[in-house]
Amino acid sequence: MRGFSREEYQRRCQSVQVNMQDCGIDVLWLSTEADVRYLTGFLTQFWQSPTRPWYLLLPQSGMPVAVIPAIGEPCMQRTWVEDIRTWTSPYPDDDGVSLLVDTVIDLAGQDATIGLPMGPETHMRCPLADLERIRRHLGNARWEDATSLIRQVRQIKSAAEIDKLRHVCAIASRTFADVPLFARAGMSEMDVFRAFKIACLQHGADDVAYLVGAARAGGYDDIISPPGDHVLVDGDVLILDTGCTFDGYFADFDRNYAINRVEVATASAHQRTWDATEAGLASIKPGVTCSTVFTAMHRVLAPGRGGASLVGRLGHGLGIQLTETPSITELDQTVLMPGMVMTLEPGFSYAPGRVMVHEENVVVTDDGYELLSVRARRDIPVIV
Amino acid sequence: MRGFSREEYQRRCQSVQVNMQDCGIDVLWLSTEADVRYLTGFLTQFWQSPTRPWYLLLPQSGMPVAVIPAIGEPCMQRTWVEDIRTWTSPYPDDDGVSLLVDTVIDLAGQDATIGLPMGPETHMRCPLADLERIRRHLGNARWEDATSLIRQVRQIKSAAEIDKLRHVCAIASRTFADVPLFARAGMSEMDVFRAFKIACLQHGADDVAYLVGAARAGGYDDIISPPGDHVLVDGDVLILDTGCTFDGYFADFDRNYAINRVEVATASAHQRTWDATEAGLASIKPGVTCSTVFTAMHRVLAPGRGGASLVGRLGHGLGIQLTETPSITELDQTVLMPGMVMTLEPGFSYAPGRVMVHEENVVVTDDGYELLSVRARRDIPVIV
Repeated sequence: MRGFSREEYQRRCQSVQVNMQDCGIDVLWLSTEADVRYLTGFLTQFWQSPTRPWYLLLPQSGMPVAVIPAIGEPCMQRTWVEDIRTWTSPYPDDDGVSLLVDTVIDLAGQDATIGLPMGPETHMRCPLADLERIRRHLGNARWEDATSLIRQVRQIKSAAEIDKLRHVCAIASRTFADVPLFARAGMSEMDVFRAFKIACLQHGADDVAYLVGAARAGGYDDIISPPGDHVLVDGDVLILDTGCTFDGYFADFDRNYAINRVEVATASAHQRTWDATEAGLASIKPGVTCSTVFTAMHRVLAPGRGGASLVGRLGHGLGIQLTETPSITELDQTVLMPGMVMTLEPGFSYAPGRVMVHEENVVVTDDGYELLSVRARRDIPVIV
Repeated sequence: MRGFSREEYQRRCQSVQVNMQDCGIDVLWLSTEADVRYLTGFLTQFWQSPTRPWYLLLPQSGMPVAVIPAIGEPCMQRTWVEDIRTWTSPYPDDDGVSLLVDTVIDLAGQDATIGLPMGPETHMRCPLADLERIRRHLGNARWEDATSLIRQVRQIKSAAEIDKLRHVCAIASRTFADVPLFARAGMSEMDVFRAFKIACLQHGADDVAYLVGAARAGGYDDIISPPGDHVLVDGDVLILDTGCTFDGYFADFDRNYAINRVEVATASAHQRTWDATEAGLASIKPGVTCSTVFTAMHRVLAPGRGGASLVGRLGHGLGIQLTETPSITELDQTVLMPGMVMTLEPGFSYAPGRVMVHEENVVVTDDGYELLSVRARRDIPVIV
């Protein structure tokens, strides 16, 4: 259940390498947790420490090469990567710079075309001064944006990845089902959040890396804040939106609850987002664009009205990051393909200062979709 | 207990602004969770999502200006920041680029000298292509490295920050004291980790953002990996190293335990790291360099020997990140000052494949130090 086969990593690297050949990229330089882990299986919370850079080089053929601080060598040795080059870090005068340069030259020569992620939703986890230094040292190299060639591969999940996502979504579903057992009027938001995290761990999550939400009279206005000391009272609407993880894969969906009673406007807003999700689900099959799924949901949310929501989209990709490409927006023309795992997340403002957001996780199949989250009921649950 | 006063944020910004004036920097451009939160109080786990960039601009005088996606506006409105400029994100064609450029020009003109972090332990959380675009749009601007001018301010913790760090270290200390109550032979590493996380939440932590460790016969070799399915047996040495958080502030220390019995070499290695910590503690006072503290500990660990450890340092700064500057290394000449919060983390390899690491958290005071973690005992605890 944990980890992946060597063949899985080989397939991932080879898929990226086919794209590199098409684009004439000799070597790919990656630096973030998600990209490095995707191609190697290097799984550690040590990325929390900003001190040390971690690099991976993928040549156009053959295996990836890790260029990492020595503290990570035993952990990297457990992956399928064989060529691991280390330096003792932190060493501010040369924190991997010359080792990276030497390794690039080893793999692809002085005149290499080097790909790195430069586009939307990416960044280089590398000090800017080091990036400049590396560019100077590799003065004859060409630098190309490799965002889309990685993204195309990461977007399509393998059967083994889908198993993990199915598993973590089931853990989140079981935890949400428990909320009426532990949340009640008189508890503070913080107490509810703490109980949720503990329940999530007890149900088998490795971590609860993301839990946001709020409880407010009649509805909430902010869906990214940590819990406050507000004490739940009758008439509150509680939203919990979790990104818990299992073996490095995220669930990401929310659930709404009313405390003891529910206003008509709130009940109706919940039904509206549920209906929008239903319309989105009905539109999902291979060959359809994200824009089409957006339109299906947006029509239900805001009949006759255009305009973007606060959230800016009605869903997104899901996998080793809480949010991945593509986005379910009016403009995103990404075509859905089997193996893409998505959240549908319709939301709208139904009164001043009151937002309703509803979310489910699905995988695109050969002829439609499979729900990964246990579908919410159309009526907002009332906790009494 | 939660949050900080408006005066605290004012003081932080003004301290950075004094440094900006000294360096001739007109406006500072920040993009990471830690830097943005330090100057604003913007606290959210939404940074888990890589999709949207978040920017903060600090002019040479006056208040900071947030340039952020609309989804974050309600959360930012709860901070002391008044000037919040938003766009609907994700919008890959212009994800904050023109809004950032316009705001820089508003604050400091076309010819501004713009500071951003470029040095060790930093990165810009901004797509490289956007960074290039912004540089092109601001063709007359000068770009300067602002790493040290932020670092100098962040390194010295206020009394209110120290209160939070004292509190979260107390939570971690209570959790470590519980380990002999729940860990025993027959449990898997994963079960121990899960029980630790739950105990940590029950003791009042908001999150356990970091928990690494291992259990192995006679000693462990890897201190950054997640737990595996190894089942604890007699003679194992268990290390748990946590970075739990309270209100966005980290504790970061570890504890070692022996299961039922302990080999002489292991017991002695534990005493050695404890003695090294004791020597490090004795050396701490304002005016002393990190290098001096390193030498005090290194002498005990490896009498007569030089050379760097796998970890690359024997401690580091601590605060809103799991690891902050400075580093306790031979080369780091940073001078300790009252209010600096540090980990002392001596470690060494005492046999092939066997590492011992011991860690405590301290704050530098006017005449020495105050322990934030409850000091471990010199003898490794044996769980029977």
